Parts: sequence; C-alpha cells; structure tokens
Amino acid sequence: MDLLTRIGGPRDLDRLTAEQLEQLAGEIRTFLVDAVSKTGGHLGPNLGVVELTIALHRVFESPRDKVLFDTGHQSYVHKLLTGRQDFSKLKSKGGLSGYPSRAESEHDVIENSHASTVLGWADGLAKANEVLEKDDHVVAVIGDGALTGGMAWEALNNIAAAKDRPLVIVVNDNERSYAPTIGGLANHLATLRTTDGYERFLARGKDLLERTPVVGRPLYETLHGAKKGLKDFIAPQGMFEDLGLKYVGPIDGHDIEALESALQRAKRFGGPVIVHCLTEKGRGYTPALQDEADRFHAVGKIHPDTGLPISTSGLDWTSVFGEEMVKLGKERKDIVAITAAMLQPVGLGKFEEAFPDRIYDVGIAEQHGAVSAAGLATGGLHPVFAVYATFLNRAFDQVLMDVALHKCGVTFVLDRAGVTGTDGASHNGMWDMSILQCVPTLRIAAPRDADQVRAQLREAVDVDDAPTVVRFSKGAVGPAVKAVGKAGGMDVLREAGTERPDVLLVSIGALAPMCLEIATLLEAQGISTTVVDPRWVKPVDEAMAPLAEQHRVVVTVEDNSRAGGVGSAVAQALRDAGVDVPLRDFGIPPVFLDHASRKEVMAEIGLTAPDIARQVTGLVAKLDGRYGSRDAEPLPVEPARD
Amino acid sequence: MDLLTRIGGPRDLDRLTAEQLEQLAGEIRTFLVDAVSKTGGHLGPNLGVVELTIALHRVFESPRDKVLFDTGHQSYVHKLLTGRQDFSKLKSKGGLSGYPSRAESEHDVIENSHASTVLGWADGLAKANEVLEKDDHVVAVIGDGALTGGMAWEALNNIAAAKDRPLVIVVNDNERSYAPTIGGLANHLATLRTTDGYERFLARGKDLLERTPVVGRPLYETLHGAKKGLKDFIAPQGMFEDLGLKYVGPIDGHDIEALESALQRAKRFGGPVIVHCLTEKGRGYTPALQDEADRFHAVGKIHPDTGLPISTSGLDWTSVFGEEMVKLGKERKDIVAITAAMLQPVGLGKFEEAFPDRIYDVGIAEQHGAVSAAGLATGGLHPVFAVYATFLNRAFDQVLMDVALHKCGVTFVLDRAGVTGTDGASHNGMWDMSILQCVPTLRIAAPRDADQVRAQLREAVDVDDAPTVVRFSKGAVGPAVKAVGKAGGMDVLREAGTERPDVLLVSIGALAPMCLEIATLLEAQGISTTVVDPRWVKPVDEAMAPLAEQHRVVVTVEDNSRAGGVGSAVAQALRDAGVDVPLRDFGIPPVFLDHASRKEVMAEIGLTAPDIARQVTGLVAKLDGRYGSRDAEPLPVEPARD
Repeated sequence: MDLLTRIGGPRDLDRLTAEQLEQLAGEIRTFLVDAVSKTGGHLGPNLGVVELTIALHRVFESPRDKVLFDTGHQSYVHKLLTGRQDFSKLKSKGGLSGYPSRAESEHDVIENSHASTVLGWADGLAKANEVLEKDDHVVAVIGDGALTGGMAWEALNNIAAAKDRPLVIVVNDNERSYAPTIGGLANHLATLRTTDGYERFLARGKDLLERTPVVGRPLYETLHGAKKGLKDFIAPQGMFEDLGLKYVGPIDGHDIEALESALQRAKRFGGPVIVHCLTEKGRGYTPALQDEADRFHAVGKIHPDTGLPISTSGLDWTSVFGEEMVKLGKERKDIVAITAAMLQPVGLGKFEEAFPDRIYDVGIAEQHGAVSAAGLATGGLHPVFAVYATFLNRAFDQVLMDVALHKCGVTFVLDRAGVTGTDGASHNGMWDMSILQCVPTLRIAAPRDADQVRAQLREAVDVDDAPTVVRFSKGAVGPAVKAVGKAGGMDVLREAGTERPDVLLVSIGALAPMCLEIATLLEAQGISTTVVDPRWVKPVDEAMAPLAEQHRVVVTVEDNSRAGGVGSAVAQALRDAGVDVPLRDFGIPPVFLDHASRKEVMAEIGLTAPDIARQVTGLVAKLDGRYGSRDAEPLPVEPARD
Repeated sequence: MDLLTRIGGPRDLDRLTAEQLEQLAGEIRTFLVDAVSKTGGHLGPNLGVVELTIALHRVFESPRDKVLFDTGHQSYVHKLLTGRQDFSKLKSKGGLSGYPSRAESEHDVIENSHASTVLGWADGLAKANEVLEKDDHVVAVIGDGALTGGMAWEALNNIAAAKDRPLVIVVNDNERSYAPTIGGLANHLATLRTTDGYERFLARGKDLLERTPVVGRPLYETLHGAKKGLKDFIAPQGMFEDLGLKYVGPIDGHDIEALESALQRAKRFGGPVIVHCLTEKGRGYTPALQDEADRFHAVGKIHPDTGLPISTSGLDWTSVFGEEMVKLGKERKDIVAITAAMLQPVGLGKFEEAFPDRIYDVGIAEQHGAVSAAGLATGGLHPVFAVYATFLNRAFDQVLMDVALHKCGVTFVLDRAGVTGTDGASHNGMWDMSILQCVPTLRIAAPRDADQVRAQLREAVDVDDAPTVVRFSKGAVGPAVKAVGKAGGMDVLREAGTERPDVLLVSIGALAPMCLEIATLLEAQGISTTVVDPRWVKPVDEAMAPLAEQHRVVVTVEDNSRAGGVGSAVAQALRDAGVDVPLRDFGIPPVFLDHASRKEVMAEIGLTAPDIARQVTGLVAKLDGRYGSRDAEPLPVEPARD
C-alpha cells in the first residue's frame, strides 16, 4: 500500500506516472478484497470501477466538479481516493457508510442508494450551473442495469433536449455478456479508441459470453434480450447524435489512459455526452469472477482467499417465502412471480428453476412490475411481486391506481421491511405500512414467524379482487411464536390471566418475541398484559375495539414509521368505534436513520423491550387503579421519545 | 346521425362500406362537438382519434381482444362505438365517465387516467395470454407525449424482450410538429403505405410546422427538441427491429383504409409491433385547430360554433399561484419552476413568459421533475415544481429519498388537491397529506384563501434545507377568510367567546368557510366553538396540544383521505403531548370516489357543514357537561360514516 496510503485527496493523483497508476489500481484491489472480506459489503462492483474512478478523479476536479454515482454501492474506490481509507468499520455504527455520504465528505453528493436517479440529479445540477453561469462540470456514472429504470429514460429525454448544456454521462457497462452488435457497430463510432487492451477485453468478453449457460434458461435469454435491446440503443453513435447526445466509446474501462482520454474529450465537448465504458465486475478477484450468479455483488464476511462465507445464518425470512412459493406454484397454475432485477435476493431463484415460464424479471423497474402485475391479474393470473420494502415506494401510484382501483388480485411481498440497519437510511423498509394505509381495499399482512409467512402468503394469494401485501424482516427468522387463542381474526399470543387486565399489547410482525418479553417485564411489575398479533394489520380487525375496551391502556409496537403507521390506524379505529382507552404507539420516529446494526438502531430509537416496558410501566402507574374504557378517566400519556 | 345511432356495438361496423365509414366519422365529429360543448370534456384528443378508433374496432374483436387506451381521455369515440351514445350527463353524477369505466362496459379495461401506463398493462395482459395459451389480441394506444414517461420505456424494454409474444402498440402521434426526419426515414420503412391521403397529411403537417412560432421561445424549442429525439427513437425501423419490435408506419391516422391495413398486418405478425399513426388533434373543428395552445385538449361548456367558453369563473387558485410566482421570480433570481407537461394547467404560463430560461418542462415525468429538482437545489437554486396533487404520487420515492434525505430546498405546489369531482376517482387529490406524513423534515402548507396562497408560497420558498408542499384546491378560490387571532403559528379564525369552550374545530385549507359555517350551526345549538387554521399542517404546530386542552372535544376537517391524514397526525401529536381530549377526524373515507360534481361528492361522503355539525352536536350532547381534558371523562365517539 505504498501509493494508496499517500493519496489524501484526488489531486494527489495528478503527479503519478502511468506505471504508478497501474500500481495504485492493484493496491486498491488488494485493499478492497482484504477490507471487505472482514466487514462485508459491495465487493464485485467496486473491483470493477477501480481504473474508472481513478480516471474520473484525474480528469475532473471534485468537489468543484460534481462526480455522481448512481445507486452508490460502487463508491468505495471514490472513498479511498478522497481521504477515507479506514474501512475497518465499514457499514458499522461510527464507521464509513456503504454508500456516498455527505456527512463524510464534500466529495459526495448523492447518497440515496435507490437506482436510476443519477441522470436526473445530473440534469438538475447542470441546469443550475447554466442558470448561475458556472463552468463547473457534472459527471454521472450509471450502470447499464440502471438504464432499465424509467427515470433514466426520462432524464435522457430531458438531457438530450439541451444541446449546449455540458454534462458527461459515464455508462459503466459491466455485463459479462454485452451484445455482439457493439462490435459490429464499432466501425461507426468515430471516437472509438482501439487499444490492445480493448481488443483483449472484447475477446475475453466474447469468450465469457459463450461460456454462459443459456440453453433452457428462457429467463436468462429474456434478460439477455432486454439487455441487447438496451445496448443497441446505447451503442449506435448515430442514434445518440440524433438525440443530441455525443457518444464516445466503447472504452476499455480498465485502461486508465484510454479512460482519461475519453473523459477529457467529453469534458471539453460543451454539451451532453455519453462515455460508454466496458468494465468487469469482480475484476482481479478469482472467487468473484467464478461466481456466475452475481460476481460477489454484495457479500458478508468472507475468507479473502476463497471467497467463502465465514458464517452461515439460520433460516431466513426470504427463503421461507421462496420455498412456499414453489409449493404454491405447483398447486396453482395461475400463480406467477415478478422481480425487479433481484431474482435471488428476494428468494425467487427456486421458483424460477421450477417454473421458468411463470416468472418475469422486469429490470430495475418497480413501476413496471406493479403495472404489468395489474395486467397479469386482469388477464386471469395471480402475480406475486417480491420486492424490497423500500423499493415499493417507487410503485406507490401503480399500487393505488392500477392495482387497487382496478380491483386486481396482486400480492406484493415486501422483503427487508422495518429497520434493516447497516445499509443506512435509504434501505430501511420503514415507509410501507404508512403510505399504504390510504390505499382503498389493500390488505397488509405482517407475519411474525416462518409459519405465519407461509400461512399468510397463502391467504394473500387467495384474495383475487384487491392488492395484498405480505411484509417481513431482513435476515434470520426467529423461532415459532404460537398463538394461545383468537380474538376475531387476530392471534392472542399471551393471555393476561385476569378478568380486567391492564395492558393490551398489539404486536406487529417480527416484533412478537420482543412484545412477549415486554409482557414478561410488565408482569414482573404486577402489570397484567395481553399480547395480540393482528396478523393482518390493514384493515384493523373488527375485534380490536372490543378487545381494547377490556383493557386500561393499548400499546402498539411496530417496525415502521410512527407517522401514519399501524398505531395511528388502530387509534383511528378505536375512535371510530367510540372506544376511548388511552393508546400509546411505539414505532420508528419520523427521521432518517444512520447506518448501524439493526440492534443498535433499535436501541437508539427506543424500540427495545426494556425501553418500552419502562415507558408502559410509567403510564400504568399513573392510572391509579382506574379500569376499563368508558369507566376510566383519561390517562396522562408521556411524550413520545422522538 | 343516420349511421351512428345504428351502431350498437363494434360488430355493427363490419357491414359498413368505405363511404359509410367516412360518413360515420363525420357524424361522430359532429356529435362530439355538439355533445362536449354542452357538458365540457376532452374534445381535441377525441376529434383526433375518430378514424383510428373505428379502424381498431373493425380489426380487433373487443371485448375478447383487449383494446387499451393510455390515460383514457381519448376514449369518447370508443364509447360511442361500444353502445354508449348518451353523452348528456358526461362526467356528471349518473352519467358517463370522462374515462373508460369497467362499470360502464365490458369493452373498457383501464380507467386510471394517469399517463404512460398502457404499455405495462399490455405487457401483463400479453403475458397472461401466453401463460393461459389464449390467442386473444392485445392492442395498446399510447400518445407520443406519454412516451416521455419512464413507465413507457420500462415497458418497451420488457415488451421487446419477448419476440414471440403478440402485442400491438399504436402510437397515436398527434404532434402538430412531428420531426422532419420521419420523412427522411420513410424509405427505410418496409411497410409504409404511401397513399394520396398520407402525402397530403405530410404536406399539411410540414405547413403547420412552419407556421408554428418558434423564434424566441426556447421552451418550445426545448420541447420540440425533446420530441424530435423521441421521434427519432420511434421512427427508425432498424432501431425497432434491433429491439425486437416490428415497426409499421407512419400511417395517416385519418385514413381508415390505411389504418385497417396496417392494424391487420400488425395483428397477424405474432410478436410485438408498433404501428405509428399520425393524427391531428382537434381534427375537423376549426376553433380547436386555431388554438395553438392545446387544441382544445379539455374544455368547459363552450359555444359549439365559436368554441368560446360560455361562462368564466372568478379568480382561481391556480392563477393566484401563477401570478405570485412571477413576482417571486422578479425578486429572487434563484427561483426556477418545473412542470411535468402541464405548463398552462398548473399556472406557470406567465412565469415562462417572464423567465423563459428558468422554467423546465420535463415531459410526463414526475419522477424526473422531483429528482432534477433535487439537483437544481443542490446546485444553488430553489425549484418550485407545480403538479396536480394526484400526480405527485408518481414521485413519492423521489420526494423522500432525493429531496428530503438530501435536505434539498424544493417547493412542491400541489394543484387540484382534495375532491376534484367530475374527472373521477383517479383525479381526486386525496392522497398527498397521507403519504407525505412519513417524509421526515417535509412541511405541508394548506392555504385557505388567495392571500394565504401568496403568503405560504413565500414561506415555502424561504425553506432551503427541506421539502415544502403547498397544496390547494381546484377551481375558483373563495373570499378571504381573516384571522382573528394567533395560537402559536396557527391562525384563529373564530374565538369561542367563552373561557371553557366546547369544540376546537381544526380547519384545513379551503375548508375554512365550511368550518366557520359549522361553528355557526354549533353556536345555534349552544355549543361554543373555536375555529383554528394551522396553515402548516405538517408538522403539527406546538400550540395545538395546549389549545386542544382548553376544549372538550377536538374536531379536524380535511379534504384528504382520513387514513393517515392530518386528523391522525393531530391525534398522535395530542397523544404524544399527553393531552387526552377526545378527537373526531372528518375527511374523505378510504374509498375510490365516483365522478360527480365536487359538491355532490362532498355531500355523499358527509363532508358538509350540516352533516359535520350534526355529528359534532351529537358528540357534545353526550359529554354531559364535562369539561377539559385531564378533568374530563372519556367521550363516547360515534362510529365514522365510512
């Protein structure tokens, strides 16, 4: 690490020779494998952009010039070159974020981690430069995958309309199978730089393409076809020039000299220009290159030499869902599945193997996932769209206007719901149970354990005239939590054991074990507690109000924003039913949460059993022995923690 | 109307001769001008698709084949041909919807009125046909404008990936200035049909293009540039064939024979195919053709001969905003404006005239509007994005993740908020105050009158580190409602005139006059009432809890979904502050609302002064003289109406 440790900022790159830059690239790769093996993180994408990032920082003058990364998981090299070389606590509390972070550095701009946004940001920044008559540069790095998102197209359409507004778009094309037509079109590309390295790159790519198993994998072919289409759209110089976009490329994304030359030309151009770079995900790291699935896109802690995971966790929510989907697929021919470029992460890999003709990968296109689901449902099928909870935000309008308004039986399975932790603010799935409350007819299930995932998924796909949502957490699923009784459609998880109990604890989803722990803590204080799991949290069960009325206070606990969440919905249901038992709603405060482990985040926001038990104890202590609802006097409730 | 009245369904078209079809087209135009003049509605778009719709129904067999219209405002001809010829109550309660409606006809499929969705629906329906092994056809009609929306691109990318899945895409290209390159590319289009009519059409189009005033109108040029880009993308046959999409066209969209021939070929093709039709918006109606602004896109009641509006309403919310924007633009050079293809409807026409370099029309692309606003703000400007409230749903993720997370000072102006009435379920702006509650830092203003629109817009653009929202109603703005006092940041509109008043009425936005009327009605029953307008409804004003504590009951009234709306937020704020005054929240029930006048809808959902006063009277009667919050016993609240 002779060179890397001497890089305190981008300008330190200026004085390095070509040989030293090569050496630096090597040092960075070694550093990345070593560091990310210890912490986990996005490895493959960063190994692919080492040279590209060096070239970007040699050509552009960050932070005056804005260097923007789409999604941001490929910004590790950028961090290393902008004064951030302590990766020991990557993604951990107090350590570096896994994405760009404006709190970390003035060199960072976008930190949202939702894909396909960078061209819109770049368009806005370029417009601002124009209005303010600044000659700073804006350069946006976007992957070929992110170009499948509609926002990218909306932005290109706008960027192309202003031929004199400078803006450099770097397409970081890391597909292992880029389309052969690119080679065929190379003759038409006036600015193509044909170095030896580039030709080697092309040859290697062709080889990889031929080794990729395509026979009998229609999904792969479908994806490949889609990518091919995009490539054809991206590649032809004539096409881009008609749009008003100068096209430079394709460039070998691992040839620093070629990259710098292309970026320099693009920087000088004075209008929107696309620089098409071919990069190799996982470059230089054999275990990644041998991983056909995703080239070590994101890893946990691994052995750096072998790339094998150091620990394996138990059964996770995702695979419980994935296995039940295969069973359902066998039982019902009308069930089809949808993923937005996340086949394996959302657990649909086995469904795809079993039913290759009944699964659709729509690209990074949640809107299309939802709308096409409405079409599929109207056409007589029952689609299950599995997506990270935070990404459903992209499809809110489609859930509302296409699925719900049209009474379509579509099931949305929201993985990574609630506090997810280390990926930071934009990955927490803390919005869904708030924004979906106002969608008429939509039903939300929050299963508490593996059995409930299976059962509620089945209940969900049985609804054929409205959207259903099944939302669960990230990671390992806890032990089964048995019901001891029923109240309407709700599961009673714990009886208070007294005729006039103190607290009705409404437990949402995976928080059931925590709620049982709260109940135990309360019991130790002499506070009798019923724990109920509504299972379906929207609509509020009709038995909720009568059950609440039997208690002195209602406490709701949810892994979702307090603002407009399940607690608010329960409170409204009680008001509407004329039940005035005081209610206290615990959940995530309406703030963006910094990265840290889930446990640390939960502690920080007071979503722990001792925290909640202490607050509830305080509430009950103030009741002075008053009981019931209409018989009781109002309860002075403490201010919320947030 | 000899022929039209004899058309009871699409199959009645089969037996008509070419001459009779021409006659029918003429009859339909006469009918449309006559009928829509009396009721108001979308006139220009429907005059443009008369022949196209006839041809579609001659070639395809609806309802077995699915004929899908994007947005749906161009479906009047389709209605006429599918048994719906009573337009006397178009868009009125009990009359025909202004959009397709599944309740009206089995020939209707999509009724959402939000643009750019049809290709996603078509993709889903085509996939369902494939899975279920049906040989029904799917044909989607989409305007060139809707192709600027990201969803259209997401769908094209998916549709193109399946070369054997039949799907017909009709691009209804009604631009008056289509790109000259289309002519240049015509030689490459294998299936181009060069009829006399088509050549005449081309000549006329060129003529119109030359007459369009472009000099000195950069926005127009910008738009034109964008459209040109799209056209270049759409037109080249080679491009589409690379994508896997067969291209047919361009076709004269007013030549029934040419249209039928092209559609027949497309129907037989066996894969995805684009039929590019050139149509003329407002065709056959001189007043529309002479209207350069929007060709009578949507009209109120007009004189059929002159096209002049029959009545003009008073000052409307939109123009109050538009005029204040011009003033702000003069005062602050950093203020820029954004519209998503709705320059005039959102009131930004005058701003564009005054500051042509500081306004951006992003196309039907709300996502890009919001994301590029984040970029503009980060670049040092303050963008004001004016958009219909219902369409902001499309940009929820961008408001949250790009604007709020990044602490960008962006002002969203939501026009047509609340119940809008005649455009039906999908145009009501009843979602914004629910879904935005969970967006950290975001502030929402709900001005009650013109003065408040001006004042709160100014307050909003002064916030430079968070998103602000200013939401107001559709149509005429009511008289000024003066404040008689302040409570924290809130305006007191009416003092109860007693030390221990009964009701605190929280009035949101334009409902202030209604709330004052409620207060008068309550006063007549001896119920003392304070009326307060929070002005900023998010966050809940800190003075709300102490003020509430002085009353026996709190009543909130909002023109937004009850689910997770302002009432719920106020209730939570009171809980958090330990204030247990019973609260009753009135708003829009969580259902989709049928088309009817705003007044009729409000009456139907019980959002009228007498309805609310009657319910509040009932509540107060049950209080039995109990006062205050901590001193009071709980209030039995009646169930909500919904």
